[in-house]
Amino acid sequence: MGFGYRTMSNARTTGESVGKVVTQSARIELPAEGFVFEGGGVLSELEIAYETHGELTPARDNVVFVCHALTGDSHVAGYHTDPETDTGWWEEMIGPGKGIDTRYYYVVCANILGGCKGTTGPGSIDPGTGRPYGARFPEMSVGDIVEAHCLLLKHLGIDRLACIIGGSFGGMQVLEWAIRHPKMAARCVCIASAHSLSAQALAFDSVARNVITSDPNWNNGDYYDGDFGPLKGLAQARQIGHITYLSQGMMAEKFGRERLPDAVSESAGPADSGLPSPFQVSRYLDYQGQKFTQRFDANSYLRIMHAMDNFDLAEKAGSLEGAFAGIEAKMLIVALSTDWLFPPEQSKEIANALLRAGKAVSYSMLSAPHGHDAFLVDIDHLVEMMQAFLPWVPERVEGETSDPEPGDQTVRGAGKDEERQLLLSMISPGARILDVGCGDGELLASLASERDVKGVGVDYDTNQVISVLDRGYDIFQEDVDGGLAMIPDDSYDYAILSETLQVVRRPRVVLKEMLRVAQEGIVSFPNFGRFSRALTLLRSGRMPVGGSLPFEWYDTPNIHLFTLRDFVTLCRHDGIDVLDMACISRGFVGRLLVKLGFCNLGADRVLVKVARADGAAKGRGRGCRSCTDLGGA
Amino acid sequence: MGFGYRTMSNARTTGESVGKVVTQSARIELPAEGFVFEGGGVLSELEIAYETHGELTPARDNVVFVCHALTGDSHVAGYHTDPETDTGWWEEMIGPGKGIDTRYYYVVCANILGGCKGTTGPGSIDPGTGRPYGARFPEMSVGDIVEAHCLLLKHLGIDRLACIIGGSFGGMQVLEWAIRHPKMAARCVCIASAHSLSAQALAFDSVARNVITSDPNWNNGDYYDGDFGPLKGLAQARQIGHITYLSQGMMAEKFGRERLPDAVSESAGPADSGLPSPFQVSRYLDYQGQKFTQRFDANSYLRIMHAMDNFDLAEKAGSLEGAFAGIEAKMLIVALSTDWLFPPEQSKEIANALLRAGKAVSYSMLSAPHGHDAFLVDIDHLVEMMQAFLPWVPERVEGETSDPEPGDQTVRGAGKDEERQLLLSMISPGARILDVGCGDGELLASLASERDVKGVGVDYDTNQVISVLDRGYDIFQEDVDGGLAMIPDDSYDYAILSETLQVVRRPRVVLKEMLRVAQEGIVSFPNFGRFSRALTLLRSGRMPVGGSLPFEWYDTPNIHLFTLRDFVTLCRHDGIDVLDMACISRGFVGRLLVKLGFCNLGADRVLVKVARADGAAKGRGRGCRSCTDLGGA
Repeated sequence: MGFGYRTMSNARTTGESVGKVVTQSARIELPAEGFVFEGGGVLSELEIAYETHGELTPARDNVVFVCHALTGDSHVAGYHTDPETDTGWWEEMIGPGKGIDTRYYYVVCANILGGCKGTTGPGSIDPGTGRPYGARFPEMSVGDIVEAHCLLLKHLGIDRLACIIGGSFGGMQVLEWAIRHPKMAARCVCIASAHSLSAQALAFDSVARNVITSDPNWNNGDYYDGDFGPLKGLAQARQIGHITYLSQGMMAEKFGRERLPDAVSESAGPADSGLPSPFQVSRYLDYQGQKFTQRFDANSYLRIMHAMDNFDLAEKAGSLEGAFAGIEAKMLIVALSTDWLFPPEQSKEIANALLRAGKAVSYSMLSAPHGHDAFLVDIDHLVEMMQAFLPWVPERVEGETSDPEPGDQTVRGAGKDEERQLLLSMISPGARILDVGCGDGELLASLASERDVKGVGVDYDTNQVISVLDRGYDIFQEDVDGGLAMIPDDSYDYAILSETLQVVRRPRVVLKEMLRVAQEGIVSFPNFGRFSRALTLLRSGRMPVGGSLPFEWYDTPNIHLFTLRDFVTLCRHDGIDVLDMACISRGFVGRLLVKLGFCNLGADRVLVKVARADGAAKGRGRGCRSCTDLGGA
Repeated sequence: MGFGYRTMSNARTTGESVGKVVTQSARIELPAEGFVFEGGGVLSELEIAYETHGELTPARDNVVFVCHALTGDSHVAGYHTDPETDTGWWEEMIGPGKGIDTRYYYVVCANILGGCKGTTGPGSIDPGTGRPYGARFPEMSVGDIVEAHCLLLKHLGIDRLACIIGGSFGGMQVLEWAIRHPKMAARCVCIASAHSLSAQALAFDSVARNVITSDPNWNNGDYYDGDFGPLKGLAQARQIGHITYLSQGMMAEKFGRERLPDAVSESAGPADSGLPSPFQVSRYLDYQGQKFTQRFDANSYLRIMHAMDNFDLAEKAGSLEGAFAGIEAKMLIVALSTDWLFPPEQSKEIANALLRAGKAVSYSMLSAPHGHDAFLVDIDHLVEMMQAFLPWVPERVEGETSDPEPGDQTVRGAGKDEERQLLLSMISPGARILDVGCGDGELLASLASERDVKGVGVDYDTNQVISVLDRGYDIFQEDVDGGLAMIPDDSYDYAILSETLQVVRRPRVVLKEMLRVAQEGIVSFPNFGRFSRALTLLRSGRMPVGGSLPFEWYDTPNIHLFTLRDFVTLCRHDGIDVLDMACISRGFVGRLLVKLGFCNLGADRVLVKVARADGAAKGRGRGCRSCTDLGGA
């Protein structure tokens, strides 16, 4: 593993545009029975609109398929006619030097089945009648959409994908795809999505549907002959949707309570009996609604919304875990902090179920102010994350090297080599490891190279998460204090808590959680019992500062101070076996004390290997390697 | 102060119903020019529907006026015909033994101006034309609504109020009332409200308006002659509103993704071209929408919504602080934790501006799962809070006493008398005090009785907040770590941080904040420098437990341990003057050490009085009362 992309790309450019692109159209060759929908409906003809970016390798092994969201289309990057105004909807993500780097990857994006941007949908001509399908277009599922995508790829001669990626409704397609065709994609990225819509999202969709079908021009979906469809209803449905895509904070920042100029707000006329809203936000919504009706078809909207509402992986398979049972791809689930339409909890449920199903999964929650739409807007971290998650193809980059920068070894602080060696000696080769508070993954990398372990990390910091992904390891972006909750029992052989226990709010709970998710734990911590600390306290009357406790009392992250003996006592009290122990000392006296067996007095830092007491017979209560005083404490 | 209601009512009953009530109607006597609206419109006749509960005292001094929300009415408690089905909208709050106790208080609630439940509104007959006003009903403000309420009270011979209370749009009326008629009410309670709607709330209202006025039966508001008004539009507007009143969590719990029975979901017919939603939540919304159209008028809805959208206290007065300048009532601002329509930040802005304007204000954020509607549903804490906030009228309760229970003195722990006496000696009589981490307000009460100070508390726990309100003090429900941010500079003479500094996450910041909001601070904390602690550490090799540090390392709330000397050093470093100091010791050796001047070694707990260094000349660096060793440290 260890792609080193990130190390290489510290001076990441913002990337360039893929330039001018043309939407292509494929007439899909169908079997005799036509395209049969999950619900039983049939299409005898299927046309799919798509765009591609980058170059396909001769081995056809560099394809990234992008699944678009509810009202998106195939125009994902580049421009059609004007680089200023008609760029693709994920222009920031796709291009040379961008998140999905078109120097290495061949990107395919297709308008979904049932859409209205070139792929066969309700507005297309039904060859059986010579008239638009309208409301007679078959009822459609997310599975149907995915199958249509697969037919396009077959048409293009592509049978495997480096990655499938999608946000929102696109993320649902990604999950469905990973389940239906487990061997097809090596990696999947599901952003700001859900395994099923929440009750609140269903509620908004329900009102949107009511609004469209109450429009006097709805005409049961047969409106293609007239001049107008249900434009007002469609515009209002879009307005409802649009509000749910933005965070409250962004709406406040963008519009606040700004009023329209008097001239504009009065243009509706003083006689407007409905008391029009005098606020900018209202005008913005009116504009968004109207603009939407120029590019979207109400029948498509209703059908795609219906597919989204009915998407429910757990219902279909009996459980979410069951739904994911066959998945083979490496999964990355990304949530957005201020998304209230597809809230982070839903992404976490996906990641949790994938873990329970024993799959390779990473979870990240990006701090993103723009709400659900953030996957299109708050793009920087997402771009870096994609660069890290997609395997780098070094031979395609001239003059660049994937060797990690020197200095990586010191990330966890100088003088930790002794601790690392001790830790390595406590771990069996080939084990499954959870590194809680893993930082940039340097320890995971060194464990992998020296002990051939399969490591997974937990860390809260986004930059660390990106680093760990870049090294090729799975990671859960979580606060250690509550973060192990998402991990199933007995998922790992060892959990490592390196210099972390003293900074958590509830050390006892974390310790317990650690031994729930792993059979054994290895904990390293600063020993407050070191003789010099008590002496400092007595002599100077001040809290000791130095060694493994370098902070002043008022800004220390070490909020739970304890001694080696305290730790051992708690272990005994909580039914935790101490399997092994190693002390790291400093200075002549410290070293001497440890040598003489006075570990608690001598050790600056301690490494303890623990196990649930039910793990019996493994050497319960084994003392320190250097001494025996604690074994019998 | 110190009403003792809560102590008395530990065995609070759930209360009874006020029983059968009849909505009354008052024809208001208007001046010759009629009822003139802020916007210039005029009504020549004004009828107001209202209900009353309880008995008016001869002195007419026990009136509580309840302001109803957007679509509420005057039927606030009791029942009209059937105690099972048509109880008032705030039945849980109002009645004998309830939050607003009708044994003591006389409750008045009136349908608002422009409404459709008995008070003159768009559906009333315009005497000038003999036809309903319809859309010709004058454009209306929250101020107009309040003035109509005042006319009703005048009509009833009531010129002052014990309390005005309202939630949501009712809370806006409360604020407007407190500003317009500052002498009228002694107390005001504003629940889940705002000084102006957020951009998101304006956006939802804007769509709701569009939906109503797009209804083919809208007819510019002139629909009273026909059989139908814009019923579909009104129902859909209500559906949008209804979603915003519920929290996401409650919707998930109440409906989840439950589906309708097949029979029901197919009743729309397989031919329903709009693909109706098969989910319960959808049916619930349809029901809510339809039910609403039976009791509400679209013109009223639009007009009241317009008044709400345009309510903006800061805009009107130039600043929120300016708007509140004249307020004389004691204010209680209550936020609800899961309310996303009127989020807690908006309530905090109100409380903050009231503080800046120098007003008596308490702020509470109740943990309430039901979203915005929680003020009608998650009622228990709100009921207790009203019982605590409204002054108790002891002579009206037979056989009950308002004396506080004995034992109150020990709430802050045994053996703290010495500390209390020392603290009292550090405070000048009549001072303004902020007690940060005030618990149940016992210290505030003892300071008030012995030093005649004006005290305000800060605490995070709802039960403590209720206790403090019950004692008659103002309180801010806040986490100490971030909570002083809402308090303006130099608001108090002293801030007290009693046994709190060591439990906060950022002690240095809290210390700084304390000396921003108050001229001087008094801090008490456990001294980790006490000789026996270092000795315990050396001798037993374990963290010392006992005295003022009674917890084990793994579950201690004391996350920042420090010595007296550490504290003094930080003060010096941060430009904080130590004005006074007192040590509390335990045991013979401890006492002796303190007596001999070795305070840092001897003191178990310490009390230090500090001030910003710019307070100069006040006795900078004065040492301990018992010794001088720290003065020169």
